[in-house]
Amino acid sequence: MTQSLRDTEGTLGAVTADLYHQVQSFYARQMQLLDAGEVEAWAETFTDDGVFSANAHPVPVKGRAAIVKGARTAREALAAKGIRHRHWLGMLDVRGMSDDQLLVRSYALVLAIPRGGQATVHVSTTCDDELVRVGDGWQVSNRNVTRDDLTAEQG
Amino acid sequence: MTQSLRDTEGTLGAVTADLYHQVQSFYARQMQLLDAGEVEAWAETFTDDGVFSANAHPVPVKGRAAIVKGARTAREALAAKGIRHRHWLGMLDVRGMSDDQLLVRSYALVLAIPRGGQATVHVSTTCDDELVRVGDGWQVSNRNVTRDDLTAEQG
Amino acid sequence: MTQSLRDTEGTLGAVTADLYHQVQSFYARQMQLLDAGEVEAWAETFTDDGVFSANAHPVPVKGRAAIVKGARTAREALAAKGIRHRHWLGMLDVRGMSDDQLLVRSYALVLAIPRGGQATVHVSTTCDDELVRVGDGWQVSNRNVTRDDLTAEQG
Repeated sequence: MTQSLRDTEGTLGAVTADLYHQVQSFYARQMQLLDAGEVEAWAETFTDDGVFSANAHPVPVKGRAAIVKGARTAREALAAKGIRHRHWLGMLDVRGMSDDQLLVRSYALVLAIPRGGQATVHVSTTCDDELVRVGDGWQVSNRNVTRDDLTAEQG
Repeated sequence: MTQSLRDTEGTLGAVTADLYHQVQSFYARQMQLLDAGEVEAWAETFTDDGVFSANAHPVPVKGRAAIVKGARTAREALAAKGIRHRHWLGMLDVRGMSDDQLLVRSYALVLAIPRGGQATVHVSTTCDDELVRVGDGWQVSNRNVTRDDLTAEQG
Repeated sequence: MTQSLRDTEGTLGAVTADLYHQVQSFYARQMQLLDAGEVEAWAETFTDDGVFSANAHPVPVKGRAAIVKGARTAREALAAKGIRHRHWLGMLDVRGMSDDQLLVRSYALVLAIPRGGQATVHVSTTCDDELVRVGDGWQVSNRNVTRDDLTAEQG
């Protein structure tokens, strides 16, 4: 994904203000659902056959059911430790592949806030998404999250 | 506020790119005024009868005069410690109640930067705002700030 | 720059959603290029005679060639320490001077992520930019970065 976005940088179209806005709104709602623990509603923001890859995990998670399961497990582990996460996505570079498909490379920060404690930056990542139009909204068909602390040597 | 936003999630309208942009610009200016210590100009971004509630404070602050006073007190306490705050609002979920009224749920981070020292994340919060159209701009009629460290157990 | 932006605040025009979007996209790409070490491509986002000033450095850097050189030196110093930087720009206040010239005051955070280590907020700054239209895009003709830790006493 990252590679393909970069390879074709010159030919991928810039998007309109309206599409950029749609993507910003999509991410705001997606992250708020995740951080509120509304795991099923969050998973609905992926396509049914969506793929979630991350350099922090050896094997990609495939399909919405598996994505829900992974999110719920992560959620329960956090709750057991009394920690809340807040996901911030920013610096969105949105490219149109077609009317119904976008590539978005963004930065994502995860903040960790322990109950009664000090908020900290948990991890800094990049997020490479393929979004596809579904009805009048968007879903993630492919997400690749790259933690910076695991790749800092690669420039 | 939070509750009403969630209860009616299905029926609240999505907003246009233009409205989303107006809200982003409004917050950028509002936060820059606050962080620059321009307390009176900042307070003008609230309605005259605006209400500012926060789970960190037992009693809501009602009316612009009281909001100015609270902000000035906070400002002076920071100045005495040689600390600057920077407020970042992001992940804006904007819903239209009517042409002249918006509900916005966002994330807000407060960065603290001591003179000659290291910037840190001071607190992570959510911000639930009611915005009303005034002239060709917007004002906050109701703000509710929820510090995550005080609610981390609530999922 | 800062001063002129503030002095004329009342007369500088609000921009359209489309311009605001262009600026957001511009910064996303600019920061991603910098953080990816694509120094030459990053420098192309400045005008040939662009000026980069910062309160952390005594002398402004003038011209794209000097800007490239400075960025490469900074990049190599980071690489030698195994640290990645991520630049986040936010809270964009965009003002139109004319159809072809914008003033933008934003907040910028630099995150530092050491290889195998913990991400932290490196510095918090404000960024005052003059953007000029070049072809169908924008370039920075003047940038002034103010580190908050060096000015925290100035309110």
